[in-house]
Amino acid sequence: MATEPKKIIIDTDPGVDDAMAILLALRSPEVEVIGLTTIYGNVYTTLATRNALHLVTKTRFSLFVSVVFYWFVNLEIAGRTDIPVAEGSHVTITQGTKLRIADFVHGADGLGNQNFHPPKGKPIKQSAADFIVEQANLYPGKITVVALGPLTNIALAIQQDPAFVKNIGQIVILGGAFAVNGNVNPAAEANIFGDPDAADIVFTCGADVVAVGINVTHQVVMTDADRDKLVCSNGKYAQYLCKILEVYFSYHHDAYSTKGVYLHDPTALLVAVNPSLFTYMEGVIRVQTSGITRGLTLLYNKQKRFAEITEWSDKPSVKVAVTVDAPAVVKLFMDRLMDS
Amino acid sequence: MATEPKKIIIDTDPGVDDAMAILLALRSPEVEVIGLTTIYGNVYTTLATRNALHLVTKTRFSLFVSVVFYWFVNLEIAGRTDIPVAEGSHVTITQGTKLRIADFVHGADGLGNQNFHPPKGKPIKQSAADFIVEQANLYPGKITVVALGPLTNIALAIQQDPAFVKNIGQIVILGGAFAVNGNVNPAAEANIFGDPDAADIVFTCGADVVAVGINVTHQVVMTDADRDKLVCSNGKYAQYLCKILEVYFSYHHDAYSTKGVYLHDPTALLVAVNPSLFTYMEGVIRVQTSGITRGLTLLYNKQKRFAEITEWSDKPSVKVAVTVDAPAVVKLFMDRLMDS
Repeated sequence: MATEPKKIIIDTDPGVDDAMAILLALRSPEVEVIGLTTIYGNVYTTLATRNALHLVTKTRFSLFVSVVFYWFVNLEIAGRTDIPVAEGSHVTITQGTKLRIADFVHGADGLGNQNFHPPKGKPIKQSAADFIVEQANLYPGKITVVALGPLTNIALAIQQDPAFVKNIGQIVILGGAFAVNGNVNPAAEANIFGDPDAADIVFTCGADVVAVGINVTHQVVMTDADRDKLVCSNGKYAQYLCKILEVYFSYHHDAYSTKGVYLHDPTALLVAVNPSLFTYMEGVIRVQTSGITRGLTLLYNKQKRFAEITEWSDKPSVKVAVTVDAPAVVKLFMDRLMDS
Repeated sequence: MATEPKKIIIDTDPGVDDAMAILLALRSPEVEVIGLTTIYGNVYTTLATRNALHLVTKTRFSLFVSVVFYWFVNLEIAGRTDIPVAEGSHVTITQGTKLRIADFVHGADGLGNQNFHPPKGKPIKQSAADFIVEQANLYPGKITVVALGPLTNIALAIQQDPAFVKNIGQIVILGGAFAVNGNVNPAAEANIFGDPDAADIVFTCGADVVAVGINVTHQVVMTDADRDKLVCSNGKYAQYLCKILEVYFSYHHDAYSTKGVYLHDPTALLVAVNPSLFTYMEGVIRVQTSGITRGLTLLYNKQKRFAEITEWSDKPSVKVAVTVDAPAVVKLFMDRLMDS
């Protein structure tokens, strides 16, 4: 008996691994992508919107390349103009913070310096927060937001509609560095660092929140060999992905001693697709919003009862992924993207 | 071939586990306690000084009890009036911070609510920082400071004498919560929370620093059964220790789900006695000094090269204990304190 696919909104700053996650979602029957909302992070919001549109619609570039490689490559981007793209915030929730854009990880264009032609599609008129709030109201308890960038849009939705926390089904967050060093600096992971105030709002809002931090995603590595396999496959998006992956691979070779790339965003997406690939613990997460550890996520695991009231007391618990079946995640990712 | 015992200064806020550490040091031939310096933390500094003096000298109380229990208890405190006690700072290094005193852990008197009579001894005229600086100058490279409380005195020594960092042999710090929840609140361990600014000065000073955090000391548990064994032993300080341990045990029963007490301070002391009971990693430690995670210790393990300069860049590395042979530590502690 087929169950109805889970309706998901992907809040995204594409971003190479965002692109991987979005295309993976489009190949996953367990989920139905009902919209993309955009945010700064890997790129500025304007470019994130452009890239989101590029991914869900056919672009002139993809048509061009399709013609060139017609006989051996079925290259096109998703051609899913039915999926609305809503542009999100251009600034942090406190509006005063200089943005940190990770173009050195994803390329200046966010998609591996491929300089794709502008997409044909246009974003809808609604803002990201408005769209998320509206959908949560339309389908109470049914929508999962998969947040792959800084959490500004989600925090705005929380602030905008007192019922949002009750209406939203689940918020899956790719963000945080739980009990490990960050990737922006030793304290902070990039998405949380992007808007720590927004992140603290989201983690303590009381909704069903699942956080997937780099303590988990750093275990999920797509190797050079995996990339070679993808290239040789008939996967619908395989050639496209391998093209945009180059800059991302070369960044990882330099910054880490890992032979491959971390599948951050696809891993978080798979929490929505198949939560049983992970184990979780529950606790209260707060975010440090100032000082040298600004953007640090601190999980209180409730093992100790403190004598005094703390900043974690009386805050709602969230779930945090603690282990991952990494081979299964990589296999699922590869299978779906290699499948023609 | 007997090697010369290592000269140690114990900077301490006694404190039940401080008392255990000090008495353990006096029973450890590998170290020679050349002085105690006092600090606020488990108690205010004035009481810490009184308790330090109480521990190294015979007190009227101990004599009285000795008479009463003469036939079956050889109770006395150390009677080591040769060990100078130098009083330390009464305030944090920034002078403006309200002190947090952990009397609910150690009893109002810091020693298990035993209301011992005042000790006969007096502190020396030198301040703790002056004494530490002087000794480091007298025996360059030979002195180990074992810091069992907030790090104000050590930071003052660093600020006072530019040569101190070069002269001091090693600084062993009982403090920090590395990649685990704190014990004051989810972010901070008590000693670092006591003076985060001082701690940041000490961790980044460039001396040979070894940190032992609660991630390690929470593995070293003295059980109720161990206490019963100690009571039945002929250990010189056994009866005394079991008396002062009651409040400490009952706090642990309430706050943690552990059947016993953590041997924080004795464990750190044993880093000076036998460093091979532990394994270490190297990295840069910074301390968050404001906000909700004030007092958090963050170790940069250098596994990632960051694109940008961070607050951890170009700071000297320290050693951090990461594993402990807990059974061996407990056995050594028990053996030495049970030995008559």
